[in-house]
Amino acid sequence: MVDVHTDLLTAQALAERLLITAGVPALAAAQQAELLVVAEAKGMPSHGLLRLPRLLRRLANGTASPTSSGCHTWMSPCYLSVDGQQGLGPVVAVRALEAIVPAAEQYGVAVCSITNNNHLGMLGYYAGRMADRGLVCLGITTSEALVHPWGGTEAMLGTNPLALAVPARPPLVLDMATSQISMGKVHDHALRGVPLEPGWALDAGGNETVDPVAAKDGSIAPFGGAKGYGLGLGLGAMVTFLTGAAYGTAVGGTLDDDHLSNKGDLFILLSGGRHSATEYLDEVRRSRRADPATPVSVPGDGARARYQESVADGIEIADDLWRELTRLDAARPDAARREAVLAD
Amino acid sequence: MVDVHTDLLTAQALAERLLITAGVPALAAAQQAELLVVAEAKGMPSHGLLRLPRLLRRLANGTASPTSSGCHTWMSPCYLSVDGQQGLGPVVAVRALEAIVPAAEQYGVAVCSITNNNHLGMLGYYAGRMADRGLVCLGITTSEALVHPWGGTEAMLGTNPLALAVPARPPLVLDMATSQISMGKVHDHALRGVPLEPGWALDAGGNETVDPVAAKDGSIAPFGGAKGYGLGLGLGAMVTFLTGAAYGTAVGGTLDDDHLSNKGDLFILLSGGRHSATEYLDEVRRSRRADPATPVSVPGDGARARYQESVADGIEIADDLWRELTRLDAARPDAARREAVLAD
Repeated sequence: MVDVHTDLLTAQALAERLLITAGVPALAAAQQAELLVVAEAKGMPSHGLLRLPRLLRRLANGTASPTSSGCHTWMSPCYLSVDGQQGLGPVVAVRALEAIVPAAEQYGVAVCSITNNNHLGMLGYYAGRMADRGLVCLGITTSEALVHPWGGTEAMLGTNPLALAVPARPPLVLDMATSQISMGKVHDHALRGVPLEPGWALDAGGNETVDPVAAKDGSIAPFGGAKGYGLGLGLGAMVTFLTGAAYGTAVGGTLDDDHLSNKGDLFILLSGGRHSATEYLDEVRRSRRADPATPVSVPGDGARARYQESVADGIEIADDLWRELTRLDAARPDAARREAVLAD
Repeated sequence: MVDVHTDLLTAQALAERLLITAGVPALAAAQQAELLVVAEAKGMPSHGLLRLPRLLRRLANGTASPTSSGCHTWMSPCYLSVDGQQGLGPVVAVRALEAIVPAAEQYGVAVCSITNNNHLGMLGYYAGRMADRGLVCLGITTSEALVHPWGGTEAMLGTNPLALAVPARPPLVLDMATSQISMGKVHDHALRGVPLEPGWALDAGGNETVDPVAAKDGSIAPFGGAKGYGLGLGLGAMVTFLTGAAYGTAVGGTLDDDHLSNKGDLFILLSGGRHSATEYLDEVRRSRRADPATPVSVPGDGARARYQESVADGIEIADDLWRELTRLDAARPDAARREAVLAD
C-alpha cells in the first residue's frame, strides 16, 4: 500500500464537499474539514481524514446532526453549560469557546462543559487558538473505555486526552492522550498494516499484543505507569462529574457509526498573564541536548514544524482512505450533475 | 540506621512546639505541623518531618515569616491573587482556598494564584479537603529546576506536582510530581542511604546515576517520557505565566535555607457536579486484576489506607531525623524552663 500525495487545499475542499453534500452548512463544513486536515498536516493522521467516512455515516444515520451548534445555558457569568445536541464536535466546541472568551477576559477564568457532542478531533487545535489570543487553555475530553487501569487488564478508561496551551511566541501547545497511544493510532496502524510496539496494548484476554487488530478488541496501556493511569482516570472522573456525561464502558459514539455520542468535554480558559513564558521556553529549547543533533523541543514545536512543511509540500494520505474519499466524492449527486453538464 | 516508632499525636505535638517556639501562632503551627505529619502518615516521608528542620532555619533567618497568611487581592469575584508575603505554605494556601470556596460555589469556578509562599507540602492534602466539600480541585505548584527535559540532560524544570481531586465516596485524590520521583524522595533516599532506581536521575554531567547524592547535583527524569515532560513543562509555564513567579533555574526557596521562595502556586476549584463518580470508581476497583492478589486501586486509595494504619499503629521516622527534632525540642527555652521548674 502506498500513500497518496495531495495538498492541504485539495484535501480541505474534498472534505468540505462531502460534508456539505451530507447537509452540513458551508461554514460548519469548513470548520469540521479544517480539524481533520490540520491534524493530517500536523502529523496526527489518527485524528485526520480517517475519521471522515465514519462522520459521513453518522450524518447519514442521524447520530450526528449537520446543523446543531449546541444549546447554551449560562450557569454563572463564567460557567457555560452546553448541550451539543449531537452536532459536529468542532462546530459545537468552537462556538462554546468563542462564547466564553469574553468571560475569561473579564473574570480571569471561564469554563465550558459540553455534552452530547461528536468527536472534537485534535484537542490541541482549540487550545492553540486560545493561546494565540493570550489565554491559557486547558481542554479535556473523555472517550470510550479503551485503556486498562495500572494493575488491571480490562478497558475501563477512555484515552482521555488533555490539551494545555500557554501563550508565548510561539505558544506551548501540549496535546496528548493519557494512554500510551490513541485508539486512532491503533486504527491507523491497522489501516497501514504496521504492528504496535510492545507494552502498548493488551488483547481481549488481557495478554500483551503487538497486533493492532487484536488490540482493537482489547485495551491500551496508560502512559507513564501508575501516574499516567491516575491522571487519565482523574481527568475522566472530573469531566464526568462536572458534565454528567456517561462514564467507563457506557461511553460510545466516537469510534462507532451508530451510537449517540455521550462523552463529555471540558474547557477552562484563564487570562491575566503576568509573565511572558517566551524567554523560559527558549531557555529550555537551548538547554544541553541528550543527542547533539536533536535540539530540545517544547510541546507544539514538532506539530508546528510539520504543519509548515505540509503547507509547503503537501501531505500523504493512506491509499485506501484516499480511494474511499474520492469514490464518495465521485458518487455525490452534485458530481453526477456536474459530469452530466460537462457531457452535454 | 533504624527508624524510630512514634504516634501521630506525639509527632504533631513535637512539630507544633518547635514551630510555636519559632514564633508561629498556635493555629498556624497546627496547620503547618499537620501537613508534615499527615504526609508521614500517608507514606510520603519526602514531604514529611524531613522538611521541618529547614523550615525552622528559614523561620530563624527570616526567609519564612511566622505570622504572614498572605495579602489577598480579588482580580474578579472568582479570581483571587495572593501575595504570600513569605508565610508558611499551608497557612497561606489554606486561607486562600477557604476564601475562594464560596466563589467556586457561586460561580461554578474560582481560582487562586499565589506567589511568595513557602513550600506547600503534600498537594493532595488541599485537593482532598476540597473534594470532601463537594468541589473538584486542581492544584499545581512550581519548584526549583530539578528535572531535565525529554531529550535534554540539564535541570530546567521543577518537579511541578499536580493534585486533582474529584468528589466521590471516597474521593479520587491524585497527587503526583511530573518527575519520575520528587527531589524530596532523592533527599529521603540520601538520608536513608538507599540507592535510586535506574532511569530516575542524571548526575551533574548528564550521565545516568543511581547515587542519590550525585543526583542532588544533577537532574531527575520526567515521568512517562515525552508526555510527562510536556505535562510538567506545560503546567510550570502555565503557573509562571499566570502568577508572575520565577521560572526555571531562577526558582529557589523550597529546598534551601536561605533564598526567598519565589515559585508559584495555582488552585482551580469547580463546583456543580452532576454525576456522582462513586459508582464509576467502584467499577474500576472491581475490574479484572493483573495480579489476582492485588485489587485495582484508584488514586488516593493507597494513601487513605496508609493513613488509617498510621492512626492505629503509629509511624516510623528516620532515626537521624528524629534525633535532630528531639534535640531541637530539648533545646527550646520553654523546655529548659520547664526542666528548671521541675527541678525546683
